Amino acid sequence: MSHHLLIASRYAAEYQRLLAEAALPGLTMETMNPDQVVSVNDTLPHDLFFGEPNLLRQLLRRLPCLTWAQVTWAGVEPLLDPSLPRSYTLTNARGVFGSLMVEYVFGYLLAHERRILSRYEAQQAGRWDTTTPGTLRGKTMGLLGVGSIGAHLAQVANTFGLRLRGYTRTSESCSYVHEYFHPPQRLAFAAGLDYLVSVLPNTPATRHLVDTNLLASLPPHAVFINAGRGNTVDENALAAALNGGRLALAVLDVFEQEPLPAGHVFWHTPNLFITSHTAALTHPPDLVLLFCENYQRLLRNEPLLYPVNFDLGY
Amino acid sequence: MSHHLLIASRYAAEYQRLLAEAALPGLTMETMNPDQVVSVNDTLPHDLFFGEPNLLRQLLRRLPCLTWAQVTWAGVEPLLDPSLPRSYTLTNARGVFGSLMVEYVFGYLLAHERRILSRYEAQQAGRWDTTTPGTLRGKTMGLLGVGSIGAHLAQVANTFGLRLRGYTRTSESCSYVHEYFHPPQRLAFAAGLDYLVSVLPNTPATRHLVDTNLLASLPPHAVFINAGRGNTVDENALAAALNGGRLALAVLDVFEQEPLPAGHVFWHTPNLFITSHTAALTHPPDLVLLFCENYQRLLRNEPLLYPVNFDLGY
Repeated sequence: MSHHLLIASRYAAEYQRLLAEAALPGLTMETMNPDQVVSVNDTLPHDLFFGEPNLLRQLLRRLPCLTWAQVTWAGVEPLLDPSLPRSYTLTNARGVFGSLMVEYVFGYLLAHERRILSRYEAQQAGRWDTTTPGTLRGKTMGLLGVGSIGAHLAQVANTFGLRLRGYTRTSESCSYVHEYFHPPQRLAFAAGLDYLVSVLPNTPATRHLVDTNLLASLPPHAVFINAGRGNTVDENALAAALNGGRLALAVLDVFEQEPLPAGHVFWHTPNLFITSHTAALTHPPDLVLLFCENYQRLLRNEPLLYPVNFDLGY
Repeated sequence: MSHHLLIASRYAAEYQRLLAEAALPGLTMETMNPDQVVSVNDTLPHDLFFGEPNLLRQLLRRLPCLTWAQVTWAGVEPLLDPSLPRSYTLTNARGVFGSLMVEYVFGYLLAHERRILSRYEAQQAGRWDTTTPGTLRGKTMGLLGVGSIGAHLAQVANTFGLRLRGYTRTSESCSYVHEYFHPPQRLAFAAGLDYLVSVLPNTPATRHLVDTNLLASLPPHAVFINAGRGNTVDENALAAALNGGRLALAVLDVFEQEPLPAGHVFWHTPNLFITSHTAALTHPPDLVLLFCENYQRLLRNEPLLYPVNFDLGY
């Protein structure tokens, strides 16, 4: 049996080269870059797709033979619109962003505790600054979302001697989480946290989950990091908490609108790092490895890794 | 049998309070703060000492009954002068600085790879900066010194997916080190390292070990971190390497003279962080735990933890 793959991606050429090297049996492929996607008007014959979900969204109604799409993002919002076809298996990217997310989250937490910026300012003023640094050890971190990325963060948090709370819909599967909380316990989850880290996807259930009430449950020395999706945060409530000194620091990778518009309140909010959706950028070889693994499973009629439940949105 | 302890420390009152709480059997104690140490002229009757090695140095000739001294630093340089008495057991502080050193080293490495400073500068200019960050994963770290602190660093380096080389006098005991090097292989050890991290003590064998030749063996994208002792580095050679762009970054906690004098070349050297000997500050409760453990061993006639070899200097 042969398969016909459409690659639509800003990295289309690189994916094609890497997949050609992998020499997968029975696979033919074509590529489109984002510009080409826009001008597609004809029906396409491909049964498989590999690429970005926003491009698949534009192509979905032209792909009547589609049986499986491997997308290269963790978030699949563009494909959740109920008016779009769902008669295919959608698998997303997991397991490939964990180590980058770990470096992002712990890089910023350590920079905060070690006072890297203020110590550098002292140095520029020629001052021998012996201010005692803080430490992660013994602090409590709350994870909003404990999927594959959250579990990776939890493991490293354990190495640094953090206590861990996890907030999930229902699952309690990560052994590094010391205490689990579920939707009715949202404010109890947040109470007394030193660090709140969100890796939540954008779903109807997570919209503005980080709101005025949740932020008010955090102590004023708390740090909030959002490496999930922008829509999970009430941005005005967060700006108010930072401006009012009711939160020590926010590190935001994602926003309700990206790029963050000129004139947005966050550009002038104190104690805030804006990291421009760079926390876990796509590394094409990792995604190709994932595609190859799932393609081999497809050939062997085995369940694919990381299928998305369209109703849950992840 | 009773013991008579002299506590001499900038934290003398806190140590006394914590030791009183520990209610160690047969122990009486007195305290001196650093000002009091200077004015001691009489012979002192104490058989045990707990405190900073620079204060013990000033008192050593007044302590004819001394049998054991537990010092609160890892480095014991002040006590290595061959003209000083050595007729006592000296134990130093180990196992208490590892987790702080880990936070220091990985905090600065991650700040560098994640471009935390330059991204913050872009933010202050209102710029959505999508520069791709670097990663620790797959990089090679060289550890100068693999004692208890080095082993702790090696373990966490492993968690971050680093390859590890270790440079030691002879030991090869840390399983997280992938490849060991010893004194004749100093330049081979340095060749091609992405990160060079020194936690070496100050001994005759380590003086200016990081010199022009070793720095020239590093690739120009390398980062050097010194959290050991200042005398292990040829400071002029390091400043020249940074000024010449032959090294990407240095992070220095220790210096040949501390505080770093005004006018020192490092205050005006690019790509350099000065952290003012704050990498692993003393946390009194940790040191008291160590003293109590060793005191119990003394009472049981068991070998003490972390005895110093005066000839090796650690």
